[in-house]
Amino acid sequence: MSDIAVIMGSKSDWDTMKEACDVLDELNVTYDKKIVSAHRTPELMFAFAQEAESKDYKVIIAGAGGAAHLPGMVAALTTLPVIGVPVESKSLKGMDSLLSIVQMPGGIPVATTAIGKPGAKNAGLLAAQIIGITDKHIRENLHQYRQQLKKTVLESGDSFD
Amino acid sequence: MSDIAVIMGSKSDWDTMKEACDVLDELNVTYDKKIVSAHRTPELMFAFAQEAESKDYKVIIAGAGGAAHLPGMVAALTTLPVIGVPVESKSLKGMDSLLSIVQMPGGIPVATTAIGKPGAKNAGLLAAQIIGITDKHIRENLHQYRQQLKKTVLESGDSFD
Amino acid sequence: MSDIAVIMGSKSDWDTMKEACDVLDELNVTYDKKIVSAHRTPELMFAFAQEAESKDYKVIIAGAGGAAHLPGMVAALTTLPVIGVPVESKSLKGMDSLLSIVQMPGGIPVATTAIGKPGAKNAGLLAAQIIGITDKHIRENLHQYRQQLKKTVLESGDSFD
Amino acid sequence: MSDIAVIMGSKSDWDTMKEACDVLDELNVTYDKKIVSAHRTPELMFAFAQEAESKDYKVIIAGAGGAAHLPGMVAALTTLPVIGVPVESKSLKGMDSLLSIVQMPGGIPVATTAIGKPGAKNAGLLAAQIIGITDKHIRENLHQYRQQLKKTVLESGDSFD
Amino acid sequence: MSDIAVIMGSKSDWDTMKEACDVLDELNVTYDKKIVSAHRTPELMFAFAQEAESKDYKVIIAGAGGAAHLPGMVAALTTLPVIGVPVESKSLKGMDSLLSIVQMPGGIPVATTAIGKPGAKNAGLLAAQIIGITDKHIRENLHQYRQQLKKTVLESGDSFD
Amino acid sequence: MSDIAVIMGSKSDWDTMKEACDVLDELNVTYDKKIVSAHRTPELMFAFAQEAESKDYKVIIAGAGGAAHLPGMVAALTTLPVIGVPVESKSLKGMDSLLSIVQMPGGIPVATTAIGKPGAKNAGLLAAQIIGITDKHIRENLHQYRQQLKKTVLESGDSFD
Amino acid sequence: MSDIAVIMGSKSDWDTMKEACDVLDELNVTYDKKIVSAHRTPELMFAFAQEAESKDYKVIIAGAGGAAHLPGMVAALTTLPVIGVPVESKSLKGMDSLLSIVQMPGGIPVATTAIGKPGAKNAGLLAAQIIGITDKHIRENLHQYRQQLKKTVLESGDSFD
Amino acid sequence: MSDIAVIMGSKSDWDTMKEACDVLDELNVTYDKKIVSAHRTPELMFAFAQEAESKDYKVIIAGAGGAAHLPGMVAALTTLPVIGVPVESKSLKGMDSLLSIVQMPGGIPVATTAIGKPGAKNAGLLAAQIIGITDKHIRENLHQYRQQLKKTVLESGDSFD
Repeated sequence: MSDIAVIMGSKSDWDTMKEACDVLDELNVTYDKKIVSAHRTPELMFAFAQEAESKDYKVIIAGAGGAAHLPGMVAALTTLPVIGVPVESKSLKGMDSLLSIVQMPGGIPVATTAIGKPGAKNAGLLAAQIIGITDKHIRENLHQYRQQLKKTVLESGDSFD
Repeated sequence: MSDIAVIMGSKSDWDTMKEACDVLDELNVTYDKKIVSAHRTPELMFAFAQEAESKDYKVIIAGAGGAAHLPGMVAALTTLPVIGVPVESKSLKGMDSLLSIVQMPGGIPVATTAIGKPGAKNAGLLAAQIIGITDKHIRENLHQYRQQLKKTVLESGDSFD
Repeated sequence: MSDIAVIMGSKSDWDTMKEACDVLDELNVTYDKKIVSAHRTPELMFAFAQEAESKDYKVIIAGAGGAAHLPGMVAALTTLPVIGVPVESKSLKGMDSLLSIVQMPGGIPVATTAIGKPGAKNAGLLAAQIIGITDKHIRENLHQYRQQLKKTVLESGDSFD
Repeated sequence: MSDIAVIMGSKSDWDTMKEACDVLDELNVTYDKKIVSAHRTPELMFAFAQEAESKDYKVIIAGAGGAAHLPGMVAALTTLPVIGVPVESKSLKGMDSLLSIVQMPGGIPVATTAIGKPGAKNAGLLAAQIIGITDKHIRENLHQYRQQLKKTVLESGDSFD
Repeated sequence: MSDIAVIMGSKSDWDTMKEACDVLDELNVTYDKKIVSAHRTPELMFAFAQEAESKDYKVIIAGAGGAAHLPGMVAALTTLPVIGVPVESKSLKGMDSLLSIVQMPGGIPVATTAIGKPGAKNAGLLAAQIIGITDKHIRENLHQYRQQLKKTVLESGDSFD
Repeated sequence: MSDIAVIMGSKSDWDTMKEACDVLDELNVTYDKKIVSAHRTPELMFAFAQEAESKDYKVIIAGAGGAAHLPGMVAALTTLPVIGVPVESKSLKGMDSLLSIVQMPGGIPVATTAIGKPGAKNAGLLAAQIIGITDKHIRENLHQYRQQLKKTVLESGDSFD
Repeated sequence: MSDIAVIMGSKSDWDTMKEACDVLDELNVTYDKKIVSAHRTPELMFAFAQEAESKDYKVIIAGAGGAAHLPGMVAALTTLPVIGVPVESKSLKGMDSLLSIVQMPGGIPVATTAIGKPGAKNAGLLAAQIIGITDKHIRENLHQYRQQLKKTVLESGDSFD
Repeated sequence: MSDIAVIMGSKSDWDTMKEACDVLDELNVTYDKKIVSAHRTPELMFAFAQEAESKDYKVIIAGAGGAAHLPGMVAALTTLPVIGVPVESKSLKGMDSLLSIVQMPGGIPVATTAIGKPGAKNAGLLAAQIIGITDKHIRENLHQYRQQLKKTVLESGDSFD
């Protein structure tokens, strides 16, 4: 029983979405990962999204590129918070992915992050922050993660000035 | 029993999608029209798309705006040809609708037309052209429609030169 | 003691951000609303963000337009989940707002919604969905909200087909 | 006597357009392929388009890049369905190709697919779907193709979860 | 026998293209104007372009909007200089018109001007400048036109400083 | 005494602008080439543009990238036709160059070609077409050039079908 | 003898550039304002820029729209700091103005502000900040201006919470 | 005690921002350089900006990429002139950085330069130009720098014509 489901439309998205999983590992947040394609396995996507709440997932992270419908369609089928990661596409560099995910109509939200790897990492962090609202342990891990971020910048400055 | 299904995500899309229906009327192509929202009625959308072939529809025209998932999701659930019309959106003027519809991944095609009313009219014409491949009557209507287009231009020129 | 803080950079953003508050009212989620400008009241913004966790807010919704720094700066100063709403700008229609909010570097997430009013409404819903993970009453309200959305579409279809 | 004509503006487009031909081969749909340039061989393009119906082609697939006029001009000269593939261009990455093909005026439709190779593959599939409306064998091949797509995703998931 | 042909795809382009004609009138350059649609009257467009040189036109000005193929197709059918005017389109404000006209492949040039009315005026001026290379009278008129431009700015400054 | 002046803002533009010179060589049109920077040698640019007519140049080709002011500033200082070539820039791939050159205000035209090498080649061709209006020899060369273009396409087709 | 010169390409830019002058008035910074067009009065522009330093101007503010060459050309002719204001253009809403002004090549800087009125106001403020480095009175005025900005936000909040 | 502070959000920005420092070195302008991240070290950024005036800095140069908040937030916390350099980002090539920096609301100016290295070099030059208003030595260095720029172009022309 994991708190987060990390889904993506194709195995080629893993290089990006791994960033989300790595940060969830680092913060001790439990997750399952799964290939679910809105376009090639729509029935699986449907079933996944409809059962997500009963499986006790708390947050869903969905990454997709191009005409990226996975985050929005999953969001249409559950009231769990869905975080959408626009995977960088070949020709339009993820601008198509971003607009396909973020420009949802009023009624069905998708929490969208940045294009590509920074967005995937932030999806993991955002999921942890949501879990952290009611889980002190995770919240503490997030505070430490931030301290570490700060320390890295300050130390890089030491050797730089 | 109609040849074409014209679907749209919201009643507010009708002002655009009416153009498709008008041209189908003009060319004597039969159609049904229906509000089907990918995001607000995903189960209806699923059922509609999965039954479309058995209901003897030959072509589906789907209009949607913003993060426009309806054409691509219906295309994922049927092997009938799906024509997608990007409805003009408020802030981004349909660029989001266009990219969400046209940038489909390899495997699941959507035949995309122009943003807004010209695109809706052309969706109707394209559907008629597809029907016209095997229906002489419709093909003849299309030839006449083209002659009429030409005549209108030539006549507007008469009063202009 | 409210669950959600709704902040915006200027009173002129209220026309947009009201959509978030309306949906929070409808779903019985408590919130405070406040004008906090990253650029004109940076000290207030700093103090607000640093105290947000101790004031027991669970989620922050921040709307801003143009070079929209409010959501990202608040996110840098708290580990509470921050939802960013890109308010439509005059010349670039919110494309600048969107990119300024969504393209956050890895480490500091902002959950971004669509440009303008649909995005503000969805920010309210997303906040409620986050609260709803551990609050059955809110979750139930969200289920009813979705049923209502669905019903509205289906009824608009009744008069339409 | 082939069902589909696959044309392209230059031999350098073949790397992209090969995707359309490969999928037509896979689905057992007959096609001819031809270099026809709207700009460098306009008379050939004219003759090709005007004779296409009498040569019993049922669908035309046309790929072009940059100021891509081939699909729209062929569409202006026939009432057969024309599928346009925006080939990726050097500087603007196919955004110019896409807008030149998709933004056709009301009256002359072009069924536009995605930029580059995914769009070319989808053009082949879309042509097959159109043929499949009245050809049970092709329709059956399409159903199998979809099953295969699904299977590939599911199997990639098996090794992944 | 006129020096310039001013053509446009539709009577609705006249509001823009009138600017070209007004400046040609002002500079005493002779012209014919004509509605010629690449998409709706392709045969007329073909005949017009192929006969343009034998009719002693020296320069062709062609205005079109959206997927604007008229300037490029005429350019493909003559070696006379062709000036293309991107007419402002409804949704994309002429960005589609501009890219469809300016991004011509190597081999077939179109001299492109700005989107909308300033571009149409400049098309007229550019045509006059081309005629002016070998026509002293027109060249003199252009020098006076420039003096007038300058004077207008200087006088507007007088009342302003 | 040459007919055409080919100028560019920096030696690094030569890789692009060489295409213009090559086609002028091929068509037997005389030209001078020169480095003239609007930003780094404004006085030279001024002098060059003001003297161009008295030096019997007939057409000026100017290439520049980024905030590309050279073509427009030269056009402001002469009534000779000026052809502007948007050189591809590093970050924005020439979209900045294109808009800086093509969006000239009414009164001062620049005949703009495509971004990068195809645009440079077309600038050379366009200059030759302008010269060809009154020079039969050049016009004949252009007709042969077009025949050669056509032949190349047709032959590439022979080996292809 | 004024510290700042505020120039603009056309009287129609005054509606925008007035914002710069108003804020300079408010801060007690002296300025002259002038119509100087890079394209229609290039000699005036040249003379103005070359004499600016000897006239004891300390900062130049230049506003222009479309292919906006005025700020960059003035910057090329003086080593005084030049602030460029992208005036909103009709079709492309100032995106052309912005890129034409900001994308200057290395060697010739233009300090660019936002598109339209907010950018003009900020140009005035930036000029005052530059003067304020060595002028205590102006610096004090700027501190008060900021306090006033802050107060306005806080007071708008009082009536809002 | 240095005149200029050069700050950047991350050590990875140094490759770009080095251009600013190199030109400051060349012109004999004193500077300090520092890593200050708006998002990862907001308290450091706050303290840095609030103390900048008392530390006798005269101009601040701030480089950042993506959702680039550093220049605007520093500008909100000081009345010293702030120059913003949009660092090229991975997916959107600095268009996000540019809009996040330049589109500041009225009241808080950021002097924005071009995307990437040319922008960083120009930030250094602009800072020197501001110092040069009251420092004859620096002004002289700038005049020599310009002469050198000019000479380099003219010499590159010598070997080229």
